[in-house]
Amino acid sequence: MIDIYTFIEAVWLMWPAYGANGLCMLAKGKRRVDFGKEFRGKPLFGEGKTWEGFALGVFVAVLVASFQMFAFEFLPWDLSPVPLDIIPMSPFLGFVIGLGAMLGDLGGSFIKRRIGIPRGKPAPLLDQLDFIIGMFVFLWFVIPLKWEWVVILLILTPAVHLTANVIAYLVKLKSVPY
Amino acid sequence: MIDIYTFIEAVWLMWPAYGANGLCMLAKGKRRVDFGKEFRGKPLFGEGKTWEGFALGVFVAVLVASFQMFAFEFLPWDLSPVPLDIIPMSPFLGFVIGLGAMLGDLGGSFIKRRIGIPRGKPAPLLDQLDFIIGMFVFLWFVIPLKWEWVVILLILTPAVHLTANVIAYLVKLKSVPY
Repeated sequence: MIDIYTFIEAVWLMWPAYGANGLCMLAKGKRRVDFGKEFRGKPLFGEGKTWEGFALGVFVAVLVASFQMFAFEFLPWDLSPVPLDIIPMSPFLGFVIGLGAMLGDLGGSFIKRRIGIPRGKPAPLLDQLDFIIGMFVFLWFVIPLKWEWVVILLILTPAVHLTANVIAYLVKLKSVPY
Repeated sequence: MIDIYTFIEAVWLMWPAYGANGLCMLAKGKRRVDFGKEFRGKPLFGEGKTWEGFALGVFVAVLVASFQMFAFEFLPWDLSPVPLDIIPMSPFLGFVIGLGAMLGDLGGSFIKRRIGIPRGKPAPLLDQLDFIIGMFVFLWFVIPLKWEWVVILLILTPAVHLTANVIAYLVKLKSVPY
């Protein structure tokens, strides 16, 4: 059953991954995760995936999860008429989410390179969902998941991504609205 | 809970959509769904989407669902130790599934054209999931869905697609393994 309550539970989970995915490019790293290696004549992951970015992503996820851990008791959970199934955040869970998100992102780049999509060229759905899929694969091992959370974040993430990019395009931060 | 039972229920649902998606290209149609119209300088859907293909896809889905309706009573459902939640198939449900799958496929092409991916160029995940998403959006209105079915088919479909293409590549039916 997808309702406002499972929606709030899912959104609570997504922040460390969104932080990691959104901020990792600020690292402007140079050390390629694939060390410049190729696979059948194409880069393994490409120039866009660096160790600095990977580390920053995981670090941001740990930070965001720690912040959520401290914020938890100050949030107005008692506004909800039903008990919410809010996953307790911790630096460890942030690390798991960040690692999953960054490895999912690498997986997405791996797939794009294999089928010949160059760095920076869009792959709709794959680009927006790789880190969410990676996050859920990793979370799978450490916490009980609701299928509703998976469906909610798989739908919500491309919508949020598109909205953010259209806004960035309208205020001329981006040259294309996607 | 995803188990062998929800898996069987999900697989039962997918056949009309898989049939529509897999066979619609046999129409080798000429009449473009977009009538050659463009949107901001790019084709609305492109040459790959024809009315003949659309109609064949819906027709195949109706046929497959009708076949499932007749086959239902001969299938060994009593092998299952738990009662299965098998959706009763009908020509009408096949029509709904086929229409959803074909419109989802059109939606995928629309997105690819908007971001400048030409006809035939791959968009991983989007290419494999557009018709499944379309199917679920339409099914939503006519039958009660389990979230497990959505998650199962979203995972299963890209895996089946990749497996089929790797096999087609190995037996030299395709020039690329995706």
